[in-house]
Amino acid sequence: MATHKLLLLPGDGIGPEVMGEVQRLIDWLNAQGIAKFETEHGLVGGSAYDAHKVSISEGDMAKAIAADAVIFGAVGGPKWDSVPYEVRPEAGLLRLRKDLELFANLRPAVCYPALADASSLKREAVEGLDIMIVRELTGGVYFGEPKTITDIGNGQKRAIDTQVYDTYEIERIGRVAFELARKRRNKVTSMEKRNVMKSGVLWNEVMTQVHAREYQDVTLEHQLADSGGMNLVKSPKQFDVIVTDNLFGDMLSDIAAMLTGSLGMLPSASLGKVDAKTKKRRSLFEPVHGSAPDIAGKGLANPIAMISSFGMALRYSFDMGDLADKVDAAIAAVLASGLRTADIKSDGTTPASTTQMGEAILKEL
Amino acid sequence: MATHKLLLLPGDGIGPEVMGEVQRLIDWLNAQGIAKFETEHGLVGGSAYDAHKVSISEGDMAKAIAADAVIFGAVGGPKWDSVPYEVRPEAGLLRLRKDLELFANLRPAVCYPALADASSLKREAVEGLDIMIVRELTGGVYFGEPKTITDIGNGQKRAIDTQVYDTYEIERIGRVAFELARKRRNKVTSMEKRNVMKSGVLWNEVMTQVHAREYQDVTLEHQLADSGGMNLVKSPKQFDVIVTDNLFGDMLSDIAAMLTGSLGMLPSASLGKVDAKTKKRRSLFEPVHGSAPDIAGKGLANPIAMISSFGMALRYSFDMGDLADKVDAAIAAVLASGLRTADIKSDGTTPASTTQMGEAILKEL
Ligand SMILES: CC(C)[C@H](C(=O)O)[C@@H](O)C(=O)O
Ligand SMILES: CC(C)[C@H](C(=O)O)[C@@H](O)C(=O)O
Repeated sequence: MATHKLLLLPGDGIGPEVMGEVQRLIDWLNAQGIAKFETEHGLVGGSAYDAHKVSISEGDMAKAIAADAVIFGAVGGPKWDSVPYEVRPEAGLLRLRKDLELFANLRPAVCYPALADASSLKREAVEGLDIMIVRELTGGVYFGEPKTITDIGNGQKRAIDTQVYDTYEIERIGRVAFELARKRRNKVTSMEKRNVMKSGVLWNEVMTQVHAREYQDVTLEHQLADSGGMNLVKSPKQFDVIVTDNLFGDMLSDIAAMLTGSLGMLPSASLGKVDAKTKKRRSLFEPVHGSAPDIAGKGLANPIAMISSFGMALRYSFDMGDLADKVDAAIAAVLASGLRTADIKSDGTTPASTTQMGEAILKEL
Repeated sequence: MATHKLLLLPGDGIGPEVMGEVQRLIDWLNAQGIAKFETEHGLVGGSAYDAHKVSISEGDMAKAIAADAVIFGAVGGPKWDSVPYEVRPEAGLLRLRKDLELFANLRPAVCYPALADASSLKREAVEGLDIMIVRELTGGVYFGEPKTITDIGNGQKRAIDTQVYDTYEIERIGRVAFELARKRRNKVTSMEKRNVMKSGVLWNEVMTQVHAREYQDVTLEHQLADSGGMNLVKSPKQFDVIVTDNLFGDMLSDIAAMLTGSLGMLPSASLGKVDAKTKKRRSLFEPVHGSAPDIAGKGLANPIAMISSFGMALRYSFDMGDLADKVDAAIAAVLASGLRTADIKSDGTTPASTTQMGEAILKEL
C-alpha cells in the first residue's frame, strides 16, 4: 500500500477543532489498514504570526511543497486585524495557492435534502441543487502587479490593484471546467464582465475557443457576472458547472454556498497541474466556511465541511473515489439520523458537539 | 414656475416602450400645470450605433451636459454583440456616467408587499425589506488605466484591467452614504476586500476616517464583500445603507434587487456633485433592469422601474419630494388593485400591458 504524505494546517479560530475530527478519521483509516497516511503539522495565519511573526514559515512552506496534499482549516480573526498587510493571516493562504500553483478551485454547492429548510430560499428553489463552481485561483486581481498604496500629495493616497489574465491561464481553467462537466450534466456557464473589462473580453474569447476546439460535446453558455449572480439567486438549478475568475469566483461561490443553507457542510479542493513525470498534482483542501472566531474553542463548530474536504482529497489526490463515496454516505447517514451541530439545528433534531459529530461519522464508516 | 430641462434617452430593447410611459406622465404634469418640463430626445447604445456608428453622439452628449437631468432607459442586446469594443452599447452609458461625473449611484432595494411571494427567498426573509445600496460609479476597475489586451507572443494574449481609487473619491461617496443613512435607519455597512486588495485597504481606512470626523452619530460597520454578499442572501434585513465600489456595487446591487422579487420595479439615481454656484447637480435616472431584448416591442415590459426612476428625479433633482411621494403611492395603489405586467403576474391578478400599466398609474395620480 502506498504511503501518502499529508500536511495538516489547522490555522485559526475553529480550524484546530474541525481539523481534530479529520485527524481522528486519518488515525482510524491507518489503524484499520484501509490506507496509509503520514501526517505532518504546521502553522498558518494568525497562529503562525503569533509564533513566528509571519503568515506561514519557510519550514512549513517546504513541508507543503513536499506533501502529497495539504489539508487546510481556516485563517483570520479580529485578533490580527491590525497586523501589517504583508503578514496578515490571509497572506499565508494566498502564498500557498500561488507557490503550489493551485490554479483550479473546485467549490461544489450542494443542498443536503435534510437541510433544505435551513436555506433562506424557498425549498423548491434549492432542493436537489448540485452546482460545481470552478474558480481560477492563482491569477486576476489577487496577484496582479502593481498592487500599491502611494501618497500622491495634498493628503491624498492612491490605491491600485491590477487584474491580469493571460490566454494560457484561461485555457487551463476552462479545461478543468469542461472535464468536470463531462462527468456531470455536461453544461458549463462562463461568467465575466466583458461589457466593462478587457479581461472579460479575453476570458470570453478563450473559453469560446477552447470549447470549439476540444469540447463541442459540452454545452457552453456565457453570462455577465452581475446577471449570473442574479440568476444564481433566482433559479440556481439552471446551472451545472460555473467557471469564472478569481474575484468573481470568490463572491459567486460564497453566494452559491449560502443558497444551499449548508455553509458549514461545503468543502473545496484547490488543484495544480499534473506533473508530467510523477503524474501527481499539488493540491490543497479546505472548507468553504471561515475561522468563525465567535464560536472558536467552544466545541460548537460543524466539522462536516472539513471532513468532506478530506473526502475530496481522497477523490482528487489519492484516487480513492470509493472511500470518498463512503465518507459522503456516512455524513448523509448521520444527518438523516437527526444529529446536528448548532449551525444546522432545527426542531426535532439531536444536538451534537464538534467531537460528537466527528465520532458519529466515524462510527457510520 | 421654474422650467426643468430633461434629456430622454430611451436606448434599446424595451427602453423606448417604458420611456413612453414616462413621456405620458411628463405630458400630463405639464398639461395640468403641476410642473414645467422641457424634453429633448436622443439616442444611446445600439440605437445610436445603428444611426451614427457610435454609442452616443457628440450632439447628444452636449444635450446631456446642458440638461437638468437625464432620463435613461436601457442599452444592449445580442444584435450588437460583435460591434467593436469602443462603440459597444454599454460604452454610451459609461461615457455619460464619466463625463457627467455621476459618482454616486443610489439603488434602493425595496420589497413591495404585494410582490413578496415573487422572490425566490422565503417571505419572512424579504417582507418589508428596504435597503439602499450606494455604489461608487466613476472610479475603480470600470475606468482605471491601463485597460488593454496585448499580444505577448507564442499565440498568447494578456488582458489587463486596473482598479484605482483615490482618497477623495472614497470620501465623497462615503458622505453620500452617511447623509442618506441619517434620513433612514442610521446605519452604514461598507463592503470591500481589504484582505486581498489594496483598494480595499484604502477604502476601509477612508470610510473609518470620514465616519470618525463627521458622522459619529451614524453606525458604521465593515464587511468583506464576499461575506457581505452571503449576508445579503441569508438575512438582508440586517442592512440599511450599503456603500461599496463600482464593481462590487454592480454585483451586490443586482443581487439585492433580485432578492426583492421586484426587479422590474426598481429605480436608480446617479448623482454628481453639487455645483457651488448654481446649487444644481448633474444627474441621470435609470431602471435597474436591462434592455430585455427577448420581450422588446411586444408591450409586455413593466414600466414601473422607469416611472419610479423618474420619481427619483423629482425627488433628488427637482426638490419635488411631495410629487415623488404621490408617484410612489400611485404605483403602490395600482399594484394593490391587482394589476400586473407579465413579469410579476400571479394567480388572481389582472394582466396588463406596458401601456395599460402606465395609464393606470396616471389615473391614480
Ligand atoms: C481568506 C480569503 C483570502 C479568501 C479569498 O478571498 O480567496 C476566502 O474568502 C476564500 O474564498 O477562500
Ligand atoms: C450595462 C453595464 C455597463 C452596467 C454596469 O456594469 O455598470 C450595468 O450592469 C449596471 O449595473 O448599470
